Amino acid sequence: MKAQDCLNILREIRDVAFATVDEKGKPQVRIIDIMLVEEGKLFFCTARGKNFYRELTESGETAVTGMNKSYQMVRLSGKVSRVKEQREKIDRIFEENPAMKDVYPGDSRYILEAFCIEDGELEFFDLGRSPIFRESFVLGKQGRITKGYRITDQCTGCGVCQNICPQQCIRKGTPCEIAQEHCLHCGLCYENCPVRAVERREL
Amino acid sequence: MKAQDCLNILREIRDVAFATVDEKGKPQVRIIDIMLVEEGKLFFCTARGKNFYRELTESGETAVTGMNKSYQMVRLSGKVSRVKEQREKIDRIFEENPAMKDVYPGDSRYILEAFCIEDGELEFFDLGRSPIFRESFVLGKQGRITKGYRITDQCTGCGVCQNICPQQCIRKGTPCEIAQEHCLHCGLCYENCPVRAVERREL
Repeated sequence: MKAQDCLNILREIRDVAFATVDEKGKPQVRIIDIMLVEEGKLFFCTARGKNFYRELTESGETAVTGMNKSYQMVRLSGKVSRVKEQREKIDRIFEENPAMKDVYPGDSRYILEAFCIEDGELEFFDLGRSPIFRESFVLGKQGRITKGYRITDQCTGCGVCQNICPQQCIRKGTPCEIAQEHCLHCGLCYENCPVRAVERREL
Repeated sequence: MKAQDCLNILREIRDVAFATVDEKGKPQVRIIDIMLVEEGKLFFCTARGKNFYRELTESGETAVTGMNKSYQMVRLSGKVSRVKEQREKIDRIFEENPAMKDVYPGDSRYILEAFCIEDGELEFFDLGRSPIFRESFVLGKQGRITKGYRITDQCTGCGVCQNICPQQCIRKGTPCEIAQEHCLHCGLCYENCPVRAVERREL
């Protein structure tokens, strides 16, 4: 599994959700088509008259997610940039996505502008497995943010966390250890550790 | 079509996308299950240890979207509140969504907290029709925001907008008139009106 595989899953799902932050600082979300995945980048487009366009260009940030029929979910968050060769890219998008001609016939397609995400963080989840499986990737240059929980050397090895974990993903030891790839980040171990040896990894 | 029908569509889709704004002001989005729709409210849950929980409780706002197999899409944005009777609601959620027991067996379910959206704006889109069809609704007490474009009395009836509209949803006249229920909000009429008679409805 690589970052590219995550982008390919999003392209196969095609109708994915894009979140933005509007000018009032509120969350917005829309179903938007992934139009192309090439050169390690994800391409989509929107019309200049839409609020989505405004939010993308003003904030420069978006977050994308989709889940396929096998309950594999991908999340991507990162920076958005306008493509330089607009007309060429829009034409290429219409070639690869012929149904677009029904929505934007003829030259009306050029009200659309193409955007890409080339730097960001990717998360992959397989919710069809038990325990769940998760993995994260870097797209482009952006650094990875570490999420979830870890067990520090304060751990006395009492095993409370291991017994309470809904995904049974804690290995007993001193210290106990969380199998990060199966962790839900639910926080039960964090709340219940009698010596407060569990801490957030993202600080 | 009513607000309740939109909530029912989201519940049928079930795995929908929830957008939030994180503590850095960036957009986040996740696939989350709609657990219940009752009393005109939409219920979902998340674990106290997750970043999603933090974002919900700190900002108090979310936006939700999903699309079904018939290309009917619903968007809901609004205020989020924690349910008062937590244990009762979590038990009811597990009763109505039995697969939850596989993810959170036994008492581990109580790391989850139930939230509801009762005030917000709803938008319905039917993308399976041509021209597309859209309609908006108020959920609870929240007022409706008017989006898109309108043609003012400055219009000379020249017909440029009517010819250019990709969805052919402008009726000729003086002034011309946009059939709001079919409008993509793409902005082509706004950009091309020779006398700048087209204005944004949301100001």
